[in-house]
Amino acid sequence: MAWTRTGSELSTALLTDHYELTMLGSALADGTADRPCVFEVFARRLPDGRRYGVVAGTARVIDAIGDFRFTDAEISQLESTAVVDAETLSWLADYEFSGDVDGYAEGELYFPGSPILTVRGSFAEAVVLETLVLSILNHDSAIASAAARMSSAAHGRPIIEMGGRRTHEYAAVAAARAAYLAGFATTSNLEAGRRYGIPTRGTVAHAFMLLHDSEEQAFRAQVDKLGADTTLLVDTYDITAGIETAVRVAGPELGAIRIDSGDVGPLARRAREQLDALGAKDTRIVVSGDLDEHAIAALRAEPVDAYGVGTSVVTGSGAPTAGMVYKLVEVDGRPVAKRSTHKESRGGRKGAIRRHKPTGTALEEVVYPAGGPAPELGPDDRELQIPLVRAGQPVDDLPTLDDARQLLRKGLVSLPWEGLKLSHGEPAVPTVFR
Amino acid sequence: MAWTRTGSELSTALLTDHYELTMLGSALADGTADRPCVFEVFARRLPDGRRYGVVAGTARVIDAIGDFRFTDAEISQLESTAVVDAETLSWLADYEFSGDVDGYAEGELYFPGSPILTVRGSFAEAVVLETLVLSILNHDSAIASAAARMSSAAHGRPIIEMGGRRTHEYAAVAAARAAYLAGFATTSNLEAGRRYGIPTRGTVAHAFMLLHDSEEQAFRAQVDKLGADTTLLVDTYDITAGIETAVRVAGPELGAIRIDSGDVGPLARRAREQLDALGAKDTRIVVSGDLDEHAIAALRAEPVDAYGVGTSVVTGSGAPTAGMVYKLVEVDGRPVAKRSTHKESRGGRKGAIRRHKPTGTALEEVVYPAGGPAPELGPDDRELQIPLVRAGQPVDDLPTLDDARQLLRKGLVSLPWEGLKLSHGEPAVPTVFR
Repeated sequence: MAWTRTGSELSTALLTDHYELTMLGSALADGTADRPCVFEVFARRLPDGRRYGVVAGTARVIDAIGDFRFTDAEISQLESTAVVDAETLSWLADYEFSGDVDGYAEGELYFPGSPILTVRGSFAEAVVLETLVLSILNHDSAIASAAARMSSAAHGRPIIEMGGRRTHEYAAVAAARAAYLAGFATTSNLEAGRRYGIPTRGTVAHAFMLLHDSEEQAFRAQVDKLGADTTLLVDTYDITAGIETAVRVAGPELGAIRIDSGDVGPLARRAREQLDALGAKDTRIVVSGDLDEHAIAALRAEPVDAYGVGTSVVTGSGAPTAGMVYKLVEVDGRPVAKRSTHKESRGGRKGAIRRHKPTGTALEEVVYPAGGPAPELGPDDRELQIPLVRAGQPVDDLPTLDDARQLLRKGLVSLPWEGLKLSHGEPAVPTVFR
Repeated sequence: MAWTRTGSELSTALLTDHYELTMLGSALADGTADRPCVFEVFARRLPDGRRYGVVAGTARVIDAIGDFRFTDAEISQLESTAVVDAETLSWLADYEFSGDVDGYAEGELYFPGSPILTVRGSFAEAVVLETLVLSILNHDSAIASAAARMSSAAHGRPIIEMGGRRTHEYAAVAAARAAYLAGFATTSNLEAGRRYGIPTRGTVAHAFMLLHDSEEQAFRAQVDKLGADTTLLVDTYDITAGIETAVRVAGPELGAIRIDSGDVGPLARRAREQLDALGAKDTRIVVSGDLDEHAIAALRAEPVDAYGVGTSVVTGSGAPTAGMVYKLVEVDGRPVAKRSTHKESRGGRKGAIRRHKPTGTALEEVVYPAGGPAPELGPDDRELQIPLVRAGQPVDDLPTLDDARQLLRKGLVSLPWEGLKLSHGEPAVPTVFR
């Protein structure tokens, strides 16, 4: 599949830190710009106490690299602000990434030091991608990592992502994608529906209830329009009265009720009893309102059929960024690494395998120098990096969003059971550097 | 100023929750869609322990409302996914906001319950803006609120925003704007330079050092290209040796050195002594690396000339969203409010004034019903809402980004001194509801 372009796609080239281009300018001037380099994306650690991370955003990175072009608009902006000189501008005007990219598939688990993405090319063509690659992976992986904990706490009950209003308007679209990747069933975000084909859902907000002269009139308007299989919001005034009115208006075929406030556990229990007594035994109970993975886990024994999650998922539930870095690890085939007081990095291009017990339980993440012989791959082990871009073009058959969902589902099942605990702890499997 | 449109502007209409449109559909069907309504944006509380919030994003909201149009692309998406019916689609195809918007100016401080934005129009035209308005205000205000604490802790020393790689690629652009609004001097983000005219800065990363065969060669390449007035990154190998080499290569006219790792306080002190001893008395010291407002405050006594701040500012330093809501407060001129177990809301359109002592110190935020008589305005008090949109068009002379910077600077000076403490506490001034 070659990159295709439509009029609605904008250049991504200025989503970039100023210093990427000044570095480039200096390197073009002194002849080092053409040196073959390897950059590696990894996280030094997981967010505080997290036991695994989830890779997300890779497909968006590949698209964004394709759109990384300096058209006249970008060049004239850089020219008028004197960011770089004419020689550098002329190089940028011809920019087209021609290197290779390998990486963890979306939906793959990762641990400290996992080589999540490896970019090979000249220094010049690879360094300018740093900011954009990190923005996407850091954001999307942070959201997917939080969302996976919520999915796992929900234990099969569907979750709708509805946090778009709590984050930047375009971050919202990417967050909906990352949450879906991590097992959420649907999203409220219409643009995520358009861009990624994610199923969207929604009925009404409290504003709709308040717009009407009575709760009954609001319910009737909604049922008339959306049918009895809709979800009625019953907590605008009094929940018990709301449920009674809801079933009276929609009949026992009412699809669901939603409770968006209060102590939703006891409220759900009372609502279930009331619905059953009214003959609405198949009416589902949807709860929302400041839920995070801990709140979801605490509701496991309650008669809840679905969750709506907003703020906590789009903000990464306390870890809004994944802290990944894009480090130069190889120049002209020789390993390089910063040697400062801390922030130690390991030079050299790396591969990674995950070892498993015969039962399928993950044992360790083995990170090894890609130049030497690869570690022996046992029958239950697998290589973690896959080819993504070759000679500047995306490879055929890149994994789809649904592939990523399935990969993550399998990955979570492979974790030692402590790895799924929500409490703070060590990474679920150790990273072993060969 | 009327809204202008260029080919590069995309419709914002699908950056919207599904339920806004299903609500609309039901309201169009039962005739309530045309009821005159007032929606109000406010925050029930400040993020945990924060003493003030900073309004940001208003200008972006006004632009986004102008771009909120359902073109053929949006309509066919909604049609093919059956989000709403043909009647609703036809209404959306003609959508153009025709109402009024008032609000706090960008850069204004806000407190719990401050009526930050008031949108008046028919239910239909106003409700569909909810998601987009909140996405922008919640994101931008969260960043500006954190950035203001950093600016105030930096006590006049310049801060460069360089966190773009730690957040979504477009959130990064808005974050750079919000940080600049809140007193940051510059940004690394080139797109923020293009869109908002914010000065961008940058020199090189550690990758540039590692690309070269020696630190000296890297410094020489940079100085040859960018001049001696550049900033040399001295912590790739050994800082003391790095500074010695830097001054040898650039001469005592060297613009600045940057230290990006380690315990930057003591390192800055040693660096200052060394630079002075080398005759580089005017060479500035820039520090970066996981700085937040607390780290900046702790460096106040150190010989630091400028800060680089990344992760903490773009993630709102622990509060990545401002938690603002968009509530229906008036229908047909009568106040409405949800009456649930908690999350109490006050019905009715509101105005707000801030009372000050004759010394200029803020005393209280008075929020009053806009229908009745306004509270008496003392000589040191002022109205906080300004007109933003009239009959669907932005008013003339909307405040600029520089106006917002100045307004915030004045606002911070007006706070009681406890209001600027970084520790957790109560809001700096109480909100009084009349």
